[in-house]
Amino acid sequence: MTDSGKKSASWLVRAQKSVSYEVRFCEDLFRSDRTDLLEKGEDLGRQRRFVVIDGNVDRLHGDRIRAYFEHHGVEYAMMTVAADETVKDFETTARIVRELDGFGIARRREPIIVIGGGVLTDIAGLAASLYRRGTPFLRVPTTLIGLVDAGVGVKTGVNFNGHKNRLGTYAPAELTLLDRTFLATLDRRQISNGLAEILKIALIKDFALFELLEEHGACLLAEKFQGHSAESDQAAVAVLHAATHGMLEELEPNLWEAELERCVDYGHTFSPTIEMRALPALLHGEAVCVDMALSTILAFRRGLLTEAQRDRVFAVMTLLELPIWDALLEPGILAQALRDAVRHRDGRQRLPLPVGIGGVTFVNDVTSEELGAALKIHRELGGVRRLPVA
Amino acid sequence: MTDSGKKSASWLVRAQKSVSYEVRFCEDLFRSDRTDLLEKGEDLGRQRRFVVIDGNVDRLHGDRIRAYFEHHGVEYAMMTVAADETVKDFETTARIVRELDGFGIARRREPIIVIGGGVLTDIAGLAASLYRRGTPFLRVPTTLIGLVDAGVGVKTGVNFNGHKNRLGTYAPAELTLLDRTFLATLDRRQISNGLAEILKIALIKDFALFELLEEHGACLLAEKFQGHSAESDQAAVAVLHAATHGMLEELEPNLWEAELERCVDYGHTFSPTIEMRALPALLHGEAVCVDMALSTILAFRRGLLTEAQRDRVFAVMTLLELPIWDALLEPGILAQALRDAVRHRDGRQRLPLPVGIGGVTFVNDVTSEELGAALKIHRELGGVRRLPVA
Ligand SMILES: NC(=O)c1ccc[n+]([C@@H]2O[C@H](COP(=O)([O-])OP(=O)(O)OC[C@H]3O[C@@H](n4cnc5c(N)ncnc54)[C@H](O)[C@@H]3O)[C@@H](O)[C@H]2O)c1
Ligand SMILES: NC(=O)c1ccc[n+]([C@@H]2O[C@H](COP(=O)([O-])OP(=O)(O)OC[C@H]3O[C@@H](n4cnc5c(N)ncnc54)[C@H](O)[C@@H]3O)[C@@H](O)[C@H]2O)c1
Repeated sequence: MTDSGKKSASWLVRAQKSVSYEVRFCEDLFRSDRTDLLEKGEDLGRQRRFVVIDGNVDRLHGDRIRAYFEHHGVEYAMMTVAADETVKDFETTARIVRELDGFGIARRREPIIVIGGGVLTDIAGLAASLYRRGTPFLRVPTTLIGLVDAGVGVKTGVNFNGHKNRLGTYAPAELTLLDRTFLATLDRRQISNGLAEILKIALIKDFALFELLEEHGACLLAEKFQGHSAESDQAAVAVLHAATHGMLEELEPNLWEAELERCVDYGHTFSPTIEMRALPALLHGEAVCVDMALSTILAFRRGLLTEAQRDRVFAVMTLLELPIWDALLEPGILAQALRDAVRHRDGRQRLPLPVGIGGVTFVNDVTSEELGAALKIHRELGGVRRLPVA
Repeated sequence: MTDSGKKSASWLVRAQKSVSYEVRFCEDLFRSDRTDLLEKGEDLGRQRRFVVIDGNVDRLHGDRIRAYFEHHGVEYAMMTVAADETVKDFETTARIVRELDGFGIARRREPIIVIGGGVLTDIAGLAASLYRRGTPFLRVPTTLIGLVDAGVGVKTGVNFNGHKNRLGTYAPAELTLLDRTFLATLDRRQISNGLAEILKIALIKDFALFELLEEHGACLLAEKFQGHSAESDQAAVAVLHAATHGMLEELEPNLWEAELERCVDYGHTFSPTIEMRALPALLHGEAVCVDMALSTILAFRRGLLTEAQRDRVFAVMTLLELPIWDALLEPGILAQALRDAVRHRDGRQRLPLPVGIGGVTFVNDVTSEELGAALKIHRELGGVRRLPVA
């Protein structure tokens, strides 16, 4: 603390906060002999845990999860939340806090456990981070988006006032446990959806991952990452590890987004507006893929990638059963999306564009003319290939 | 980032966040030649500011504040919030965010300006900290509680589910400007209210400040810290500086409350429950004072301070026109308050008790019998001296 002295008294307060958290792959987390989920939190007498679980996950996996807590003698309350993008709002956060408050937990040593997709981990992470100004929590992502993206970073959030994730915090879960066996019960479309975020990592920084997707993507999708053969099992593990690793490599040095040029924002410039406008027609990863397709064309027009590379990217998107085009892609909406992105990026576009496959650059000079010209190509390439997203 | 390798893949993510903020005394902040309020935020073209102001402050000072922004050519929106403890809730936070979203600000270089008492700076600080996961803000506290307490730390918050500040964040204002001229229009009772938090600092760590209050307290209250004589002016400045300095000295090394034994929690064990139960009959500082009185008696019974010291403390409370007793002080409510404090302090009482005047210790073994015995003395000493708090 610097104190300027009695006259024009002024104090400069300085402090450093250390943050650390673990992300761990772990198969079959709720097998009775596993203890990963219960190792955090101090154990004074009987363990007490407040658990928040996604409605579909409860329906499909709730019995064995309850059996797990009972087997370990944990005093727990389990709150089921029917979570999807349309209820990703502060009211749902408040509902969680109210139940949590009723159960009552010690402030630091009874971490909240959140089991569900990205919507639930974002909402419940926000609840945990606000409760008594921050209560520890653990995450068990159960969707592919959760495993490789929503579940590995520190962002929480809810939609507000028609805007995607307009309110939120940076709050790491102490421990996140990634158990791909949950993916077995996920809809095929939801697997595609998660593959979009994996493809994003591949496109901006990992050509080897792109090749893995090209080679094994169709099989991973069909088998939902469960590895029915030795080869596909190896591919599933390799893809999940590479995606998680790549994501964490980008996040760690920029955990609080001090730097606003973020290559993981690739596909996230136009998509927040499109996703919210289309709600619930487009899933998060689908909106991201449509945005990546447009950005790929912008890059192609600038000579940042060749026509062959562009087509190769589009082919993998199609292989992964992701949409390349959406009817909402029209000049007015794109201009509005870009304006909001500029505000979000503090006054500049900072638009990530691919350089070849596996590279990235940032531009700040995209005009509406350029967007219009790209749209024209995009409509031709994507409009006809559009996949049914039912 | 520590990567355990491909087999049992696990990552340990580590990062350090540096925080710094300034608290500055400044007289007559809105005089047209002052620029303290506009020095933060990058200036690309015309300055834009979203201002949130307390309803009473707007009524009493709004004209000159508007004139100030106009004089400096700032494009601003000013939102007036009728702030008091009964609307310190998330709905008010949401209202602020909605207006802010309509005005539209760049994410990092157009800091939100908050002008008001502790209720408004807490609510609007929360809004700023959640908007796009954190937008810079500046504070101009206009009450005595704001100047010496709510306005100098990093806590934001709103009441929820009947509990005081149950939801909140740790989010420092980049700059807080302390202008005592605002106190001139404050109710006498609100000055008393703020003196309670100053007395708290005196009691736990600053005997010299206690003596200043003993000598000048009555005059500071009457003159509302405006210093009508050279002597009282000097006393006003000395008291404000000592209180702010003492508070910051305690906060800085423990900004995120990693340490739960906090001497600034003196008077804040029973008071959150009492304040919420009494709402709106007791002000924040009044509830704190009633709690400090009870804690003083607990300490007296344990031999931590003498009868003479106890009476000296009570005499200053009375001098400052603060209540010493409240009818809500009954065993059931105190037991419940202590239970919630224990949860809040992660399983232990960590109850700060005064040691003499100017010292503090923490205890964890207060029983309901001990509370009952203290209450009996308290009722006798305080019940009769109770002041009208109208
Ligand atoms: N915080 C971050 O850094 C971050 C990163 C990426 C995405 N996100 C957010 O994540 C959200 C998308 O996440 P999502 O795709 O997981 O959506 P989601 O949480 O809505 O889950 C998708 C659907 O799958 C169901 N489900 C979940 N697990 C299941 C399982 N194992 N078996 C069967 N059904 C299951 C859910 O009930 C839901 O209907 C978006 O809101 C996005 O903003 C956040
Ligand atoms: N964040 C923290 O660290 C912290 C610390 C202490 C207290 N607090 C919070 O602060 C709140 C109490 O703050 P407060 O006492 O400032 O209450 P307040 O904000 O309600 O203000 C008290 C009253 O004074 C009016 N007012 C404000 N400035 C005025 C002025 N200059 N002239 C005339 N009237 C004016 C307000 O309209 C209000 O009616 C509580 O909610 C408490 O929890 C927070």
